Amino acid sequence: MTVEFWYLIGAALVFWMQAGFAMVETGFTRAKNAGNIIMKNLMDFCIGTVVFSLLGYTLMMGEDALFGLIGLPNMDLWANFKEFIASPADGSFTGASTFVFNLVFCATAATIVSGSMAERTKFSAYCIYSGVISLIVYPIEAHWIWGGGWLSQLGFHDYAGSCAIHMVGGIAALVGAIFVGPRIGKYVRDKSGKVTKVNAIPGHSITLGALGVFILWLGWYGFNGAAATTPSELATIFLTTTIAPSVATCVTMIYTWIKNGKPDVSMCLNASLAGLVGVTAGCDAFDGIGAAVVGVVSGILVVVVVELLDLKLHVDDPVGAVGVHMANGIWGTLAVGLLANPDAPAGLSGLFYTGSFTQIGLQSLGVLSVGVYATVMMIITFAAIKKFHGLRVSADDELLGLDITEHGLPSAYPDFVPAVDKYSSFAPAEGIVATAADVPAAEAVPVKRVPAFDDGVSPKFTKVEIICKESKFDALKNAMSELGITGMTVSHVLGCGVQGGRPEYYRGVAVETNLLPKVQVDIVVSKIPVKSVIETAKKVLYTGHIGDGKIFVYDVENVVKVRTGEEGYDALQDVE
Amino acid sequence: MTVEFWYLIGAALVFWMQAGFAMVETGFTRAKNAGNIIMKNLMDFCIGTVVFSLLGYTLMMGEDALFGLIGLPNMDLWANFKEFIASPADGSFTGASTFVFNLVFCATAATIVSGSMAERTKFSAYCIYSGVISLIVYPIEAHWIWGGGWLSQLGFHDYAGSCAIHMVGGIAALVGAIFVGPRIGKYVRDKSGKVTKVNAIPGHSITLGALGVFILWLGWYGFNGAAATTPSELATIFLTTTIAPSVATCVTMIYTWIKNGKPDVSMCLNASLAGLVGVTAGCDAFDGIGAAVVGVVSGILVVVVVELLDLKLHVDDPVGAVGVHMANGIWGTLAVGLLANPDAPAGLSGLFYTGSFTQIGLQSLGVLSVGVYATVMMIITFAAIKKFHGLRVSADDELLGLDITEHGLPSAYPDFVPAVDKYSSFAPAEGIVATAADVPAAEAVPVKRVPAFDDGVSPKFTKVEIICKESKFDALKNAMSELGITGMTVSHVLGCGVQGGRPEYYRGVAVETNLLPKVQVDIVVSKIPVKSVIETAKKVLYTGHIGDGKIFVYDVENVVKVRTGEEGYDALQDVE
Amino acid sequence: MTVEFWYLIGAALVFWMQAGFAMVETGFTRAKNAGNIIMKNLMDFCIGTVVFSLLGYTLMMGEDALFGLIGLPNMDLWANFKEFIASPADGSFTGASTFVFNLVFCATAATIVSGSMAERTKFSAYCIYSGVISLIVYPIEAHWIWGGGWLSQLGFHDYAGSCAIHMVGGIAALVGAIFVGPRIGKYVRDKSGKVTKVNAIPGHSITLGALGVFILWLGWYGFNGAAATTPSELATIFLTTTIAPSVATCVTMIYTWIKNGKPDVSMCLNASLAGLVGVTAGCDAFDGIGAAVVGVVSGILVVVVVELLDLKLHVDDPVGAVGVHMANGIWGTLAVGLLANPDAPAGLSGLFYTGSFTQIGLQSLGVLSVGVYATVMMIITFAAIKKFHGLRVSADDELLGLDITEHGLPSAYPDFVPAVDKYSSFAPAEGIVATAADVPAAEAVPVKRVPAFDDGVSPKFTKVEIICKESKFDALKNAMSELGITGMTVSHVLGCGVQGGRPEYYRGVAVETNLLPKVQVDIVVSKIPVKSVIETAKKVLYTGHIGDGKIFVYDVENVVKVRTGEEGYDALQDVE
Repeated sequence: MTVEFWYLIGAALVFWMQAGFAMVETGFTRAKNAGNIIMKNLMDFCIGTVVFSLLGYTLMMGEDALFGLIGLPNMDLWANFKEFIASPADGSFTGASTFVFNLVFCATAATIVSGSMAERTKFSAYCIYSGVISLIVYPIEAHWIWGGGWLSQLGFHDYAGSCAIHMVGGIAALVGAIFVGPRIGKYVRDKSGKVTKVNAIPGHSITLGALGVFILWLGWYGFNGAAATTPSELATIFLTTTIAPSVATCVTMIYTWIKNGKPDVSMCLNASLAGLVGVTAGCDAFDGIGAAVVGVVSGILVVVVVELLDLKLHVDDPVGAVGVHMANGIWGTLAVGLLANPDAPAGLSGLFYTGSFTQIGLQSLGVLSVGVYATVMMIITFAAIKKFHGLRVSADDELLGLDITEHGLPSAYPDFVPAVDKYSSFAPAEGIVATAADVPAAEAVPVKRVPAFDDGVSPKFTKVEIICKESKFDALKNAMSELGITGMTVSHVLGCGVQGGRPEYYRGVAVETNLLPKVQVDIVVSKIPVKSVIETAKKVLYTGHIGDGKIFVYDVENVVKVRTGEEGYDALQDVE
Repeated sequence: MTVEFWYLIGAALVFWMQAGFAMVETGFTRAKNAGNIIMKNLMDFCIGTVVFSLLGYTLMMGEDALFGLIGLPNMDLWANFKEFIASPADGSFTGASTFVFNLVFCATAATIVSGSMAERTKFSAYCIYSGVISLIVYPIEAHWIWGGGWLSQLGFHDYAGSCAIHMVGGIAALVGAIFVGPRIGKYVRDKSGKVTKVNAIPGHSITLGALGVFILWLGWYGFNGAAATTPSELATIFLTTTIAPSVATCVTMIYTWIKNGKPDVSMCLNASLAGLVGVTAGCDAFDGIGAAVVGVVSGILVVVVVELLDLKLHVDDPVGAVGVHMANGIWGTLAVGLLANPDAPAGLSGLFYTGSFTQIGLQSLGVLSVGVYATVMMIITFAAIKKFHGLRVSADDELLGLDITEHGLPSAYPDFVPAVDKYSSFAPAEGIVATAADVPAAEAVPVKRVPAFDDGVSPKFTKVEIICKESKFDALKNAMSELGITGMTVSHVLGCGVQGGRPEYYRGVAVETNLLPKVQVDIVVSKIPVKSVIETAKKVLYTGHIGDGKIFVYDVENVVKVRTGEEGYDALQDVE
Repeated sequence: MTVEFWYLIGAALVFWMQAGFAMVETGFTRAKNAGNIIMKNLMDFCIGTVVFSLLGYTLMMGEDALFGLIGLPNMDLWANFKEFIASPADGSFTGASTFVFNLVFCATAATIVSGSMAERTKFSAYCIYSGVISLIVYPIEAHWIWGGGWLSQLGFHDYAGSCAIHMVGGIAALVGAIFVGPRIGKYVRDKSGKVTKVNAIPGHSITLGALGVFILWLGWYGFNGAAATTPSELATIFLTTTIAPSVATCVTMIYTWIKNGKPDVSMCLNASLAGLVGVTAGCDAFDGIGAAVVGVVSGILVVVVVELLDLKLHVDDPVGAVGVHMANGIWGTLAVGLLANPDAPAGLSGLFYTGSFTQIGLQSLGVLSVGVYATVMMIITFAAIKKFHGLRVSADDELLGLDITEHGLPSAYPDFVPAVDKYSSFAPAEGIVATAADVPAAEAVPVKRVPAFDDGVSPKFTKVEIICKESKFDALKNAMSELGITGMTVSHVLGCGVQGGRPEYYRGVAVETNLLPKVQVDIVVSKIPVKSVIETAKKVLYTGHIGDGKIFVYDVENVVKVRTGEEGYDALQDVE
């Protein structure tokens, strides 16, 4: 069995990373968008296969042209199949193997972006982006690095793609996240637009996210190792590809433990990936110490960049794609110039081992040129999509979730009761303010009969039960708080009534949804007039559409507060 | 290292497909049956191993006998171990390798059925089926195709099993689904039995389903590639096994987008599998274009067949096994006769490349003969199981879910609140009608005291709070709707009371279930007499068993409708 | 391509088992600890890599010293990299390959423990344990068996680690589980400390658990097969590694079916692993029959040991680690002495094949010596951790879950409504008793106004609605039951109020949690005085901290019991 078998086994492992990305990105985002993220991950591989086979592959691997800038397109895959699958006399691999190998790498670069743009990007826009990166953007820079282009001719070293794949994917992720903007509810701004609060929007399944990380780590042995042809080379790669992520994860654990008081699970999962990205360019050029140093830096870098982006720059990257792939892609590429041990299989001269600045110079040149290229190309791509097609779904669609709005999937988890989306039910602020002005009709409806609503008939306790849309809950909560209400009980209910809705299709069958998720808010009041509560709720909840909700009023005999033993009026006062 | 190592690595990848099937089938069905489906997937491999090693393997691969119809059984695995694991002098693989390789393929054929028969088949019946297919049904036709039998002697080509595995598994899935009948609630029928409505019953975890697809795709590189012995052959297989599913998925995405207005996630996941099934027979015989054409057809075929089966033929196949495996198994087998490129490693002459009808004739013969054989065998199998053992669980068990009823597993997800099973709480229609007649005892109980229930004491608002079994909810909803009630609030609660139940065992420990899931339905009425609501609810909910539920009546002070601002009686009228 | 490539592919498969352990352990435990278990599984590999590379590896594989007791430490990995990655002239594997191979095995031994100690062990304590086992405990006994130490010199055979890995990991799991003690709620004890009841605490996701088992099974082909160098050897290993778990699973299915009336899903999943553990030592020494016999015994052994431990010894091992790994590790090691077929690649003489007692004597010696060694080392380790650092989290932290308390992760599944933790809300018994004495302040609060609470104003129905902490629910239920209350309705709500809490960090962002999960218990009473209900609830729920809950009292107009048709007072009496 020739080593080409391993080359293809390795390619299969790289394909497997698609599953890892799908799980990481789905797990680290919300349940209401799970189907959408799955779909993006599936489609970027499938669309990528189509466009890479049509043009991308030969742009990358075709005969070098234009002074090392691109490969010359050809049609060998489609028109010259016999040659394409023949084993060359020189012992090199078949065209078909080389194609499959490069395709799965290309798909890896493409899929990084879906994480940073998750939960608010139009599916169609993502498909376009995905086509563009696999058709043109990636193939050209990959030609420079791996296709015999100018960077490879100069001696730039990126064994498995810290730069070609991860930095480029990470740059695309950053540009995309900036262009599409943060998710609703992520950043609270004051009237001047200044961010006054950063909200965490936790992912819906840490276990799936963790599974994704393990999948990626396994796949990475193929990602870094597939091109190895000697035992010595493969053993080195497996060694460095194990040490760097392990060290990075330990460092992040310790770092977050010290910084936040507890070791952060999802950051440590990110750290494993960061270490893997960091070691990728020089997995055949580092020794054990070099891999460990790469890991130490990666473990800190990923935390710093994720927090910098979120807390300072307010760029919303739900899964940490920029911190993992861009930051560590750059670091890993430069690390080759610093930490390459001449005794390692690659035989390169790192600055710290030889004092030579040659390799670090070349690595910096590569990072710079590819970085600028990728940034420019992605700005053009996303700017064009935004202008001519639209990049982002509507606020309503985002709040409802992309599963139902983009794919007609009522829920990716219909057998479980969804929690109130407490983190992101921030309707755009105008929503509430506008109500008062826009809905005179509703307010003008004459009050027909208000028994027992007159203020002053106290001491009486009344429960106001409000059934409303989930997306209005946060606004309602805030409005009630302003009224002086300090306690409420919230539960998830299903409203069953005469409510229209867009018909959705699941596997070709129209899906009925006459049980709609609602929130029930119970408020017991005594001194605060029931009328105020009702009028405020009406103002906040009104949109004029069916499904705005109902309010029921009940008499309460008494109230007891357990902690203090207080009863009646006093039990309702929670000013503590 | 000889190529036999790859043969075994490939076999391990095929084993891995068992995990894929388990995840796809579990993800695409309901949470209440998740443990049962897992168990079926686990057991069909384990039972298959036992029976295939006892007889199936030699029926398939033993010395050809009866004019190519079966292999001669022998006991080499058990009685002649030295020989069984020796590497033959001619360089062919050891018996042990060949056994493991063929076993994992056999298990793949067997496991396809569990999806189409999911959620209502008796576990014991499934075990019997699983034994029969692996013991006899599969081995015989596999002998024809791969064991030196008559079809292989004629020149029929099925490299990795579009016909031998997928078509046969798909036929078994179809026959099984017909014999076991549709799930309760899937098809609504009028009195004449005509289907008046088709309900979608969404799977409980799209993410697990998607993970399953990725697992299957990875495993497929082993499934199609394990038998390859040259780089050229393996490279071709990896190429076609990548292009066909990618193209199929893109085509399905576009097709469902156009047809239903949105790209369907679960159909696209099915499409990837459809493309993989389609390319399997000719993965070594197609070129890139052939693989792409296979994918285009597969992508449309899977949607058409899934919808045909569901919407027209009313055969309930929860995971699309028939559309994926049977339809595309047939297509893939025939495609070899049409699209085989003589330049590909198989060197076959497809009609479209050479104008020769020989191969397509052979392929048709294979499809026909194996198809008839499999259909007959499976009809006999399922008819016998149905007659002598019973194929389907009781309606009660089906409604409760097979986890608890077949395995004593209270829930596969006990830490999450289960959603009301709105899609399938359709008790058989007689259930409701019969009540009035069957339960005079309950109705005869004298009403002892009915304060404030007299009609006419209006205008008064009353809340009727009904606590009942989940399985009765749909009937209750419909009955209330007929009474003229247009709105209700539904929530999930736990009933805690003196309720018996069968003791269940989890890992040997008796499980107490004194907190039973119930549905609480709140209805506020004004003009509609409270008495009518209560009496109707009693009729619908009555079964005579402990746990039928309770009804509480409360006074309501007022009601407000947010959208219109109406209060009181008007707020309750939702005739819109 | 040399066989060293397979050696490394196999090592990657063993790495993949980490994902399997993570999924099995997470799936078989509760959702509130999912992030913590993931973290332990991730960190034991990462910490293990660090310490094994620093010292463990050479303790195991360094030049034999001290009469076969340890290997001599050296610094080749760090200081002599050129040599470390060079292919020796004798055709043996590179140091780097050998290191990676042994590292992933070491990590397997370490990770077994996290399952048995799950859900109540301090994360920091686990990190210390993990370092110790990988640094010293495992390397020394592994030196005896695989590093050229005294056991290997004598002829002890443990091909892939039934003894070296699984028995040792299982012993550590047992010692750890004993030292840390059972989870709160697992065993109910009377005043003398005698266990009066064993509770089942079901895992939160059978599907993830099952996925983990499939992952482990796949990885096991690498675990058992990676060191094979001939087709004959690898084929034998794949054969036995398939037959033993399949047979074990079938046997367990039948055994639990007969014993408990239904086939147990999670036990069958354990059985697959038990069969794999059992066949590991002799995977190259058994024939088909031997593997089948190993499986039969493993399938019964795992059930017997799991139940013995839980029902008789009251050692709480949430995932069955002791039954799977320790019991079957011992069995598998001894089985080599009994069932080794001289015709198998290992060429050993099992008692049943040759009548020779030599091998079984050696195997017994190995089990005994390694068993004693591991037991002593682990007792020292856990005793020291317990004394100097603390092994277990506080009861409060355990009840809240380790995700939030150990890692600041509010929930691993924030988008789903968590079910009431009915199995483990048993606060330590003192909690309730102490209340009466400790909180005079609360009780001393003068009752200010108690309208309509006077007993005797009957016949009146009153609903008492209690909003309280989940962790108090079970105590409340029992107290109400003692009062004579036979029915209540329980639901999950969110309390929204002025409630402080420790600020938690998710990915560096402070997480606000002003919506706290609460339980709402509705009780309707007639004869039982409302006052008694309220006073009892106050006693039970009082802790003196914010968030103790509130009690609301409502008038009820009537009550109807569906099954009997009874109304009013009679409808409330559930003495049946």
